[in-house]
Amino acid sequence: MSLYVIGIDYGSDSVRALLVDTSSGRELASAVVHYPRWSQGLYCEPGRDQFRQHPQDYLDSLEQVLQALWQQAPAGSSSKVVGLSVDTTGSTPVAINSAGVPLALLPEFAQNPNAMFVLWKDHTAVAEAAEITAAANDYAARAVGPNYLQFIGGIYSSEWYWAKALHVLRQDAAVRAAAYSFVEHCDWITAVLTDTTAPADFVMGRCATGHKMMWHQRWGGFPPNAFFTGIDPVLDGFATRLNADTRTSDQTAGRLCAEWAQRLGLPRGIAIGYGAFDCHMGAVAANVRPGVLTKVMGTSTCDITVASPELLADKPVRGICGQVDGSVLPGMIGLEAGQSAFGDLYAWFRDLLSFPLQLLGQSLTPAALEALQAQIIPALSLEAAKLTPGQTGITALDWVNGRRTPDASQRVAMAISGLKMGSQAPHMFRALVEATAYGSRAITERFREQGVPVDSIVVIGGISKKSPLVMQICADVWNCEIAVLDSEQSCALGAAIFAAVAGGVFPTVAAAQAVMASPVCQTYQPNAVKAAVYDRLYKQYQQLGDFVNASVAVESQGAV
Amino acid sequence: MSLYVIGIDYGSDSVRALLVDTSSGRELASAVVHYPRWSQGLYCEPGRDQFRQHPQDYLDSLEQVLQALWQQAPAGSSSKVVGLSVDTTGSTPVAINSAGVPLALLPEFAQNPNAMFVLWKDHTAVAEAAEITAAANDYAARAVGPNYLQFIGGIYSSEWYWAKALHVLRQDAAVRAAAYSFVEHCDWITAVLTDTTAPADFVMGRCATGHKMMWHQRWGGFPPNAFFTGIDPVLDGFATRLNADTRTSDQTAGRLCAEWAQRLGLPRGIAIGYGAFDCHMGAVAANVRPGVLTKVMGTSTCDITVASPELLADKPVRGICGQVDGSVLPGMIGLEAGQSAFGDLYAWFRDLLSFPLQLLGQSLTPAALEALQAQIIPALSLEAAKLTPGQTGITALDWVNGRRTPDASQRVAMAISGLKMGSQAPHMFRALVEATAYGSRAITERFREQGVPVDSIVVIGGISKKSPLVMQICADVWNCEIAVLDSEQSCALGAAIFAAVAGGVFPTVAAAQAVMASPVCQTYQPNAVKAAVYDRLYKQYQQLGDFVNASVAVESQGAV
Repeated sequence: MSLYVIGIDYGSDSVRALLVDTSSGRELASAVVHYPRWSQGLYCEPGRDQFRQHPQDYLDSLEQVLQALWQQAPAGSSSKVVGLSVDTTGSTPVAINSAGVPLALLPEFAQNPNAMFVLWKDHTAVAEAAEITAAANDYAARAVGPNYLQFIGGIYSSEWYWAKALHVLRQDAAVRAAAYSFVEHCDWITAVLTDTTAPADFVMGRCATGHKMMWHQRWGGFPPNAFFTGIDPVLDGFATRLNADTRTSDQTAGRLCAEWAQRLGLPRGIAIGYGAFDCHMGAVAANVRPGVLTKVMGTSTCDITVASPELLADKPVRGICGQVDGSVLPGMIGLEAGQSAFGDLYAWFRDLLSFPLQLLGQSLTPAALEALQAQIIPALSLEAAKLTPGQTGITALDWVNGRRTPDASQRVAMAISGLKMGSQAPHMFRALVEATAYGSRAITERFREQGVPVDSIVVIGGISKKSPLVMQICADVWNCEIAVLDSEQSCALGAAIFAAVAGGVFPTVAAAQAVMASPVCQTYQPNAVKAAVYDRLYKQYQQLGDFVNASVAVESQGAV
Repeated sequence: MSLYVIGIDYGSDSVRALLVDTSSGRELASAVVHYPRWSQGLYCEPGRDQFRQHPQDYLDSLEQVLQALWQQAPAGSSSKVVGLSVDTTGSTPVAINSAGVPLALLPEFAQNPNAMFVLWKDHTAVAEAAEITAAANDYAARAVGPNYLQFIGGIYSSEWYWAKALHVLRQDAAVRAAAYSFVEHCDWITAVLTDTTAPADFVMGRCATGHKMMWHQRWGGFPPNAFFTGIDPVLDGFATRLNADTRTSDQTAGRLCAEWAQRLGLPRGIAIGYGAFDCHMGAVAANVRPGVLTKVMGTSTCDITVASPELLADKPVRGICGQVDGSVLPGMIGLEAGQSAFGDLYAWFRDLLSFPLQLLGQSLTPAALEALQAQIIPALSLEAAKLTPGQTGITALDWVNGRRTPDASQRVAMAISGLKMGSQAPHMFRALVEATAYGSRAITERFREQGVPVDSIVVIGGISKKSPLVMQICADVWNCEIAVLDSEQSCALGAAIFAAVAGGVFPTVAAAQAVMASPVCQTYQPNAVKAAVYDRLYKQYQQLGDFVNASVAVESQGAV
């Protein structure tokens, strides 16, 4: 009998379930359900970058997505399932009470955004992130302890756990009074499925703890309580209450509890693996290995590679999102980086250009309007493809959402230079595509500068299949071959691979990958002539970036 | 009997005729005719900034605009006309043969753009302008002679006479062989009307010669032939063949010849004044005086003020478009500056945003499309008016057409910084409006730094009446009162004022102004709170500008 596994992938807008046959790697069925409250825009304030998700959204949509999966799957599939693993976005933490319940699941907090998951792209904690960075630098400068940021790039980001926790605790006295701890989405779902309710029993995955929570084996877990209370007394006890034992995703977190077995239509007691972040698991589905950078290209990007512990030893890689033993593959250092905006930059431009469409008023139905907007990027791409590198004279940055790596900063913004009367929308669009490619190149160069080889790049995600223009420009700007992953749901596939190991079907992740990882469906080759031009233009991108960095530094000094 | 005068104003797209009663200053009739060939886009290549106008366009449209004027004017008006003066755009020179005929009026050159007027905004001569600047600096450094650019801002512009002449001579062997001299549009029309055919007899106006042709009384006219041949032997003889005697516009250039009296329906022998550039005459209609800057606000701006010869003596004002004795008012130093883009920057953004409208295809008639486009700027203005200074976080430069002043450069381009995901079209539009106001402020500050007082600003032109948003932002950014001129056709009115002096109705320009100059119709007051914010934001504009200037300097060095 074939054994099946399920990968659950919680994205920004929806949850996906993928059923995979472990004997062949065949994707038997998949389903997607959008988060109901999120889809209505509840609890968010995009104008101030507040993005919150209700825990009930995660539970309801999980139940629904399994129901939808069983409608797609061959009859009798559910009984063959031996393991399930979960990936989520991150850092996406929530405040929980001493019973491990996210506060927003309690009636008194049901409508309070501060009691909900703070989604990865929520940037309300910019000030708190800067304080944490300053505190870590100060701690190290005074030789009180090590620099707790040394293995997560040297800069704490507003996208991460402690900044968000601190922000919420400061903002909301009621949440502060009720919060016992904070837990990441990927760890909470695992706890729910295995019926682990007491926070003291929560064993967390290596991925979130290592990349976002300042956990490291060198200091035996999390920084000491004094480090956090030195930043703000409201943090007192939060680090102490975390379990310093963390695990890689190939291990079994527990067994599916009776309640959730029933709700999901799955056999009770099947293995549940430790959760991790989506792109980390996606990289595993893409056969990530030393020298290979996998890049999930969506609204933003998440870039993952791995290196042997011997190569990096304890050597910090500056300005990235962390280097964590076992966060991607057991026994390897997982390295994370990423761009805060990729497809989002194109979407921003599309939305900018959509302004005149509102003037059409009633003459355009909402459906026709949406159809028209959907044509904008393809039409721009068609025209932009006719231009040659350097022809537009325009240089843009990709920092419309701030910058994740290299050197995280939410203060930086996008800039465009070289605009002339003849600069039309397709010219600007091409410059924006080039900007996203330059932003990627900056990450690759940073890895290489710091001794982490990047020999080839595998791309995953919608844009890699939708836009030959973007992919070819990337190949030319990066001056390296790009392989496009075949799987349309690589993060869920990665979770399924881990579920197969946690469920005992394979002894190692490598063995599971050999059967289940996705093939490459297409490659792009760099054009040597264009690559040489882009080498030169990339310097202009760097110069514009230097200017913006310097301006932000001056502003910050002015503010102090 | 009332005496009438006519002001003829040749703009970029059309010629305007204005009939004024000298006893009251009343504007009795006006008419506008668009240049026929220009309207069809002939002889232009906007992609490479080539803008040429056929001399026949100027002649045909002049005849037509007078015909149209007589249809508007009270019966019997033409017999009461005693003077006519002309203003034109500039620098807008053309190659002429030894009989004073623009080459494009000869059959063999009729379709040759190099044989036509090179419109002010033609930027094909960027390289030649740089060579002239270098030659002038070198000449002065080697103490061979004075710096011939000292009274025209220190930088020769690609918009000006000698750069354009040199470019055309280099480009076109046939034109080079046939060209005897080059003449500005304003001087040629005056010559045509007075039947002055021999170039040796051309006495030119002070305005074009002083601001664009390096004429100055200190070196007794134009730079010596050796200066020009040192740049390129093709210039041999061109300066020598110019008449070094130049005149202010209050003087009579000659009498209307029989042929043109007949063609224009005017009495033969009426006075024709010396021609000048449009904004210089517009400033006179706006009662320009020391301490008052007049600003013609259209697609670009032309900024004019005057100073007493005692104040400036021979002191050069750096980075502006020239200081010329009598170019505006006789007996005063006329100072010219300007922005290469003002309304053009808004139009650029409108055109950028219009991209999706092409996707509507056949469902929108051309008329409906045009109507829709015409709504874009008003709709943007409505939303932008709701924003407060600094709210957008966006900083833009106004250099989408390069920079005219301070410190002419066609290499610089526009840049925008501070863009975030939440930056929408109205946010960007407001930043562009602020950029145009900052660009203006840079000119005012330059004047003040160099000892030329600017105490109040009078604005002239379409935008000043069409956009309260733009005007209020200007008042806040400039932190000074703005007066809006009532006349809708101030340049033509200025020409009429000079025609009245040339025609002997008034003994002086001041006397003519007392009766005929336009009143102010509206004022805008700065808001002190907003002005303080803009003081801070203006520094960001300067920093962004410094970055672009430095980038261009690096590129230029790289090219050398």
